[in-house]
Amino acid sequence: MNHTSTTTNGFAEQKDLHFGLEPASMKLRHVVESQQFTLPLLMDLFTRSRGMERIVARGGSLDHQNRILATLFYAPSTRTRFSFEAAMYKLGGRVLSTEQARAFSSEVEGERVEDTIRIIGGFSDVIVIRHHEEDGAQRAAAVSPVPIINAGDGCGGQHPTQALLDLYTIYRMRPLDGLSVAFIGELDKGRTVRSLAYLLGKFERIRIFFVSPPELQIKPDILEYLDRRNVQYELESDLNKVVGEVDVVYQTRIHPDRGADLPVRQKYAINSSILQRMKPDAMILHPLPRTVELDKTVDSDPRALYFRQATNGLYVRMALLTMLLESQ
Amino acid sequence: MNHTSTTTNGFAEQKDLHFGLEPASMKLRHVVESQQFTLPLLMDLFTRSRGMERIVARGGSLDHQNRILATLFYAPSTRTRFSFEAAMYKLGGRVLSTEQARAFSSEVEGERVEDTIRIIGGFSDVIVIRHHEEDGAQRAAAVSPVPIINAGDGCGGQHPTQALLDLYTIYRMRPLDGLSVAFIGELDKGRTVRSLAYLLGKFERIRIFFVSPPELQIKPDILEYLDRRNVQYELESDLNKVVGEVDVVYQTRIHPDRGADLPVRQKYAINSSILQRMKPDAMILHPLPRTVELDKTVDSDPRALYFRQATNGLYVRMALLTMLLESQ
Amino acid sequence: MNHTSTTTNGFAEQKDLHFGLEPASMKLRHVVESQQFTLPLLMDLFTRSRGMERIVARGGSLDHQNRILATLFYAPSTRTRFSFEAAMYKLGGRVLSTEQARAFSSEVEGERVEDTIRIIGGFSDVIVIRHHEEDGAQRAAAVSPVPIINAGDGCGGQHPTQALLDLYTIYRMRPLDGLSVAFIGELDKGRTVRSLAYLLGKFERIRIFFVSPPELQIKPDILEYLDRRNVQYELESDLNKVVGEVDVVYQTRIHPDRGADLPVRQKYAINSSILQRMKPDAMILHPLPRTVELDKTVDSDPRALYFRQATNGLYVRMALLTMLLESQ
Repeated sequence: MNHTSTTTNGFAEQKDLHFGLEPASMKLRHVVESQQFTLPLLMDLFTRSRGMERIVARGGSLDHQNRILATLFYAPSTRTRFSFEAAMYKLGGRVLSTEQARAFSSEVEGERVEDTIRIIGGFSDVIVIRHHEEDGAQRAAAVSPVPIINAGDGCGGQHPTQALLDLYTIYRMRPLDGLSVAFIGELDKGRTVRSLAYLLGKFERIRIFFVSPPELQIKPDILEYLDRRNVQYELESDLNKVVGEVDVVYQTRIHPDRGADLPVRQKYAINSSILQRMKPDAMILHPLPRTVELDKTVDSDPRALYFRQATNGLYVRMALLTMLLESQ
Repeated sequence: MNHTSTTTNGFAEQKDLHFGLEPASMKLRHVVESQQFTLPLLMDLFTRSRGMERIVARGGSLDHQNRILATLFYAPSTRTRFSFEAAMYKLGGRVLSTEQARAFSSEVEGERVEDTIRIIGGFSDVIVIRHHEEDGAQRAAAVSPVPIINAGDGCGGQHPTQALLDLYTIYRMRPLDGLSVAFIGELDKGRTVRSLAYLLGKFERIRIFFVSPPELQIKPDILEYLDRRNVQYELESDLNKVVGEVDVVYQTRIHPDRGADLPVRQKYAINSSILQRMKPDAMILHPLPRTVELDKTVDSDPRALYFRQATNGLYVRMALLTMLLESQ
Repeated sequence: MNHTSTTTNGFAEQKDLHFGLEPASMKLRHVVESQQFTLPLLMDLFTRSRGMERIVARGGSLDHQNRILATLFYAPSTRTRFSFEAAMYKLGGRVLSTEQARAFSSEVEGERVEDTIRIIGGFSDVIVIRHHEEDGAQRAAAVSPVPIINAGDGCGGQHPTQALLDLYTIYRMRPLDGLSVAFIGELDKGRTVRSLAYLLGKFERIRIFFVSPPELQIKPDILEYLDRRNVQYELESDLNKVVGEVDVVYQTRIHPDRGADLPVRQKYAINSSILQRMKPDAMILHPLPRTVELDKTVDSDPRALYFRQATNGLYVRMALLTMLLESQ
């Protein structure tokens, strides 16, 4: 664990302070963006997540029986919401739930998320928010009397727990140092790719291939960050060239309205021919939901881990909840 | 209990195998359609349901404290959803809840219920699904890692727990062998009527009257099934002719958009004049919600059991949940 | 406590009987409107609410572990719904929840709230309803097998628990007898103002200023009630004239579609200049949500109690739930 090199990264350090992170005690107040997670904090989280696997296998705990989680989803996402709520249940807690908070807030002109958070924070112990604006979670954290977890904000925003469960899924299979990863699909707007690339930059001897149509390639800010961290990377437009070389194939969806018609989207799809070129011990990840870019026939391949990602999300979110509830 | 005659019915047998039912151990994996329920399974369910009445009278149990029920309603139905969720609570369990899952899934082109089920099955112990497509529940059951309960699929589809609670309501009042029943209303599309007629066919000396405008009469597939089971039935268009002869008056709603204007719908309504012609110990059932076909003045008649049907639904669903959770 | 004077008020007495209130035993069956609350009942409620503050500080209780609260919101209100649900959780209970019940009921022509209540009352122990029609809660209470709590009905209707938490917030700061209050904003349609004015009329030596544009002033029925109760009041259109004289500044929102353009709404706003004229020990209340009528800069003033109102709502609703559940 490389404590010093992480905190000498100016950007990360600034963020840590902003969200009340004190590296010495590793106390976590809010989870707003993946930049908050230092290497020691990641290792603490993953160790806890392993423990959560054992707790779930035993049927869950009742340790947080009196604590209340509120999910405040301004944009609906049944799976992400259920994952957080199930995590709270497995810890013994209770859940206040919204499926579509935006319908409610639209009834009032000028309604501000800050007031809502201050009120709901008055009768809950932790709030999971998915907001339609990019700074929604950060604005919530700035005023909240209880911990905030960002469950996705805006289109180009953050979704830090997705990146954490992605990384945990890889970590459960092999050491993270020395990993080679191909990110495939619509990379410029892909918040899961951006966040995971950020986290990978904290490890040693990482190699990344960004594979996409040139007009949808990863943005320079991530590449500059990887340069600072001495991470090797390549930009590539041909999936076939790199798929045999990597340990992780991280597939994402290309939205049809991004100017990519079906033949383009199929050119970047994972199918049986791509499977044959992959390493025998590679991993296929996808944040889901999927469309044409990930064929159903892949599901039965032992390298397909995308449904295991969902279960790992339960463990990682349980671990995060315990860290936040205990730091209160 | 007539084990053999049930399994010699080719259709039922095929279904049983399909859904993992093993008549010997009576293990229940999913509840997708009423055809799954053999006579021994029905009797097991009803005996358990009686036990649930006692558990609810004592205030509920905490036996399934760590288990999680997920309700996945693509079409909203507050009452059916609440009934399942209350059943899980009375067993001590937890609930993940959607009121309108379709709003969520519509955001993604090509989103498939199979993927959603595989993910949600990763952090729940049983899933109740109401899907807008007729094969939705069956598709869910085909891939789910946990038991699926069909809470209604499509328009002409199934809603098996409604038929089970209907039958249980009658069973609590009198023996099912020798029963005479009048089904009234829009019978061709009525999934509750179709399912209940199917279940009644498993008992001895049943007589059924199908009472409706000729153009809305019950479809031939049900009549053929009743023929095979040697059940007596008659098609009738005049309610007055049969209402005095039956033990059960099962009323249903005629949708105004089915070409039946108000005078037609009122001709098939239950009102005080119909009440006078009914047997003194008859039962009036209705799956609710109701409109003109069931007058409010009927509510105070002791033969009106439609609100008791709702309470019985709680017991039957509790019983089903225990059967599914214990077969895991 | 002035038991007799309250029950000699014909209106109040009639209401009490209607909702099953027996002043002798102070049993509460339903909470439909603030008129139900006699002075002894208010004092009982506030004493219980104090006790709830202690229970919450200890982390909640499990005393009502087997009881089920159903929230039936035909119009969405995340904050009010969460407040009731958190109250039930802190008592150890379970929650059946709707965010938008109207979407469900609209699918059926002629669907009546009475049938829904009779069914949901079959598997819950208390129902919180927000209905879009003014008599929705009263119609629900008339048929319900379990206690009903009105969480707001119609536009000019009631929202009694809001008035109770408002009054409790004042009560926690100073004695209610001798209080002077300024109600500001859109008073003719303001259900919280109407309900709180009604409750204040039960105390001694109350002085009320109704401050609003003349066309939005409080309606005569409230003034006639205050006359009967010998409460001093004044109608005023200039906020500056009264703001220095009162113990409580109760601010409310003016809807922009009420013919009041922005300059008018700002004329009735609380800002730093108004703050300077207020008594040093005054209280600023607002039912929230707010727009221009309550500037963000007011939030840091120690006299701003509107976020504490929300927390007090939790205690008052817990107290009400225990009263209703114990009267079963």
